[in-house]
Amino acid sequence: MRKFLAAMRNHPPIAVELWDGERISACKGPPEVVLHIKSRGALWGIVTNPDLYFGDAYIVGAVEVEGRLLRLIELASNNRPDFIKESTWFGKLMGLVAGAPRVNTPEDAIENIHHHYDVSNEFYQLWLDRDHMQYTCAYYDHPDATVEEAQTAKLHHVCRKLRLKPGDRVLEAGCGWGGLARFMAREYGAHVRAYNISHQQLVFARDKARAEGLDELVEYREADYRDATGEYDVFVSVGMLEHVGKANYRELGGVVDRCLTAEGRGLIHTIGRNRPRVMNRWIEKRIFPGAYPPTLGEMSEIFEPYDFSVLDVENLRLHYERTLDDWRQCFEASRDTVREMFDERFVRAWRLYLEGSIHAFRNGDLQLFQIVFQRGRNNDVPWTREHLYRHDR
Amino acid sequence: MRKFLAAMRNHPPIAVELWDGERISACKGPPEVVLHIKSRGALWGIVTNPDLYFGDAYIVGAVEVEGRLLRLIELASNNRPDFIKESTWFGKLMGLVAGAPRVNTPEDAIENIHHHYDVSNEFYQLWLDRDHMQYTCAYYDHPDATVEEAQTAKLHHVCRKLRLKPGDRVLEAGCGWGGLARFMAREYGAHVRAYNISHQQLVFARDKARAEGLDELVEYREADYRDATGEYDVFVSVGMLEHVGKANYRELGGVVDRCLTAEGRGLIHTIGRNRPRVMNRWIEKRIFPGAYPPTLGEMSEIFEPYDFSVLDVENLRLHYERTLDDWRQCFEASRDTVREMFDERFVRAWRLYLEGSIHAFRNGDLQLFQIVFQRGRNNDVPWTREHLYRHDR
Repeated sequence: MRKFLAAMRNHPPIAVELWDGERISACKGPPEVVLHIKSRGALWGIVTNPDLYFGDAYIVGAVEVEGRLLRLIELASNNRPDFIKESTWFGKLMGLVAGAPRVNTPEDAIENIHHHYDVSNEFYQLWLDRDHMQYTCAYYDHPDATVEEAQTAKLHHVCRKLRLKPGDRVLEAGCGWGGLARFMAREYGAHVRAYNISHQQLVFARDKARAEGLDELVEYREADYRDATGEYDVFVSVGMLEHVGKANYRELGGVVDRCLTAEGRGLIHTIGRNRPRVMNRWIEKRIFPGAYPPTLGEMSEIFEPYDFSVLDVENLRLHYERTLDDWRQCFEASRDTVREMFDERFVRAWRLYLEGSIHAFRNGDLQLFQIVFQRGRNNDVPWTREHLYRHDR
Repeated sequence: MRKFLAAMRNHPPIAVELWDGERISACKGPPEVVLHIKSRGALWGIVTNPDLYFGDAYIVGAVEVEGRLLRLIELASNNRPDFIKESTWFGKLMGLVAGAPRVNTPEDAIENIHHHYDVSNEFYQLWLDRDHMQYTCAYYDHPDATVEEAQTAKLHHVCRKLRLKPGDRVLEAGCGWGGLARFMAREYGAHVRAYNISHQQLVFARDKARAEGLDELVEYREADYRDATGEYDVFVSVGMLEHVGKANYRELGGVVDRCLTAEGRGLIHTIGRNRPRVMNRWIEKRIFPGAYPPTLGEMSEIFEPYDFSVLDVENLRLHYERTLDDWRQCFEASRDTVREMFDERFVRAWRLYLEGSIHAFRNGDLQLFQIVFQRGRNNDVPWTREHLYRHDR
């Protein structure tokens, strides 16, 4: 461990304290963060199975971080020894802690966080924006926007990109708690049919729509988006593609092709990558089973087979860093409530996920793409993109 | 031929008149365009080798079009019989004329237009914009912009997307007559090193730069862009990627990777496709040897291997249709001069190329992509794209 820390570049202000009180430091001055490894077993677990074990060890308290977790992740990622090959942010952290090659994961010791805990609507209501319950990247259209304002701005940005107008028939694939669908109906007079397979989210979405008098305009269907029928002027999907899986992109394009009118417009909003890489294994195991953020090149399988024309791509990566940090602050402000709802392990898992994600977007490991497209022969395209920026707020 | 015309959808207002005066018509009313086929040989050539032969037959006058050539191309393309499989616009036209399967091209009867004729700077000066000599898509930022204004707006649009500022060191790959390089120096105070392999264009570019007192800021190098050396804040390439060839995209990305600073910005402006298809054979043979317009998916080979992050993609397809139509009008206004400089064949070849290209962009066969990118870990990104639209004109 000492050798490992000494090999780190720039003598980062990190110290490791072992279970017997021995402290090892890479830095010359005082450390900014101290990683406490509580037992020989924890060190062994981290050394033999770093990619998955550190996250689990952090959750159960077998390791502790003195100082901000994000800072440890950053320092580990940015100063890793040259002999550790580049990996995800988490792999880099593991590299720091373990200095061991990545090994296969054994049988899961902890179930994925969604299966283990009954993660309720109430939990997300504690820290997502109140108005729209958006669990996707916001759009901070002015520097001092709150997350509430930025989520509203995101919804407008999406609707403007789609040139949404009264009477438009919208197909939404993966609607979460239904905030975008209600927004499109209320603010733009659109008719939205939204697909989601989460029963719990749909109960919430329907209640909200009824309470707001929007149930004539919005229909939530508890079904796979691939079962969509009918004809639509607009296709929209915000934060679903991450869960679709690369092998299914062509099928997704086929659903859009089947449902969209000749003059229809489409938008996909998704986490992505600059180059193909597997998802961080801990996040994939514990937080988002099956998640895969694609590159633009990989996404072309959605569009090219059907002659869809990509009109506009915007990368909002740093908006997601800020969204996550706003969520994190709300989350930490509610952590006592969260602990009561679940337990300390849950609080720690969620903290690790939020901090790790902040780092991933800040560090360029993850991107956020909004892609606007329509059919190749449709000449009804906006002449410029000025309409997205010159409007009444 | 009669059978073929009868099979066309919607009874398009096309007639074919054969060498012996026989007229065959697909339409019920009077035709809008008449295709005159002047000899049995011409019909035979078109039938046996449609893809290449029609263009050549048109050039030499073995076929004539009464009415606007573009209209014939459009009608043929949009109403082709169902038994003709989809192809490029030109293949569709050939399908109309010939109803024959595509066959291999024999030895060229006519050399490619650039080799056959010494296409001079003076020729392009007759019909390109006077100020910047831009032989690439313009940007019509307001509805009644002239092509002169739209080319100036395009250059500003490119510079704003690159956030160009005084003192920036720019690497330009493929500079044509050097208009963008001079504009960047004059309007933004940038230092530009521009690569081009055309001696004739560079003589013009250097003369212009000297005359404008810009030769301290602009350096034109007669060399392949792959030979570029040095370090740059900006990489820009407008209208070169079409000529690079798919197999060389990774190498192009490598050149950018080698030359761009950690904080550098890049922009590629190129003709593209919605899905992979070969270039129209006549255009490829006669006008742009080796040209290949890529899809966004194909272009990812430039970016992904080097962790370049795509920030912004804009599709300006209909701006190119309008640019081409403005060029065509200037070209036709100068056709007597062009005929004197070259001959009637040249006039006809160029007309066919311009009309065919107008159709290709209008019909969605070709796209125009502007792609902004920078390194994956560079967080100096504009917060929104509003700066492209809110500025002093």
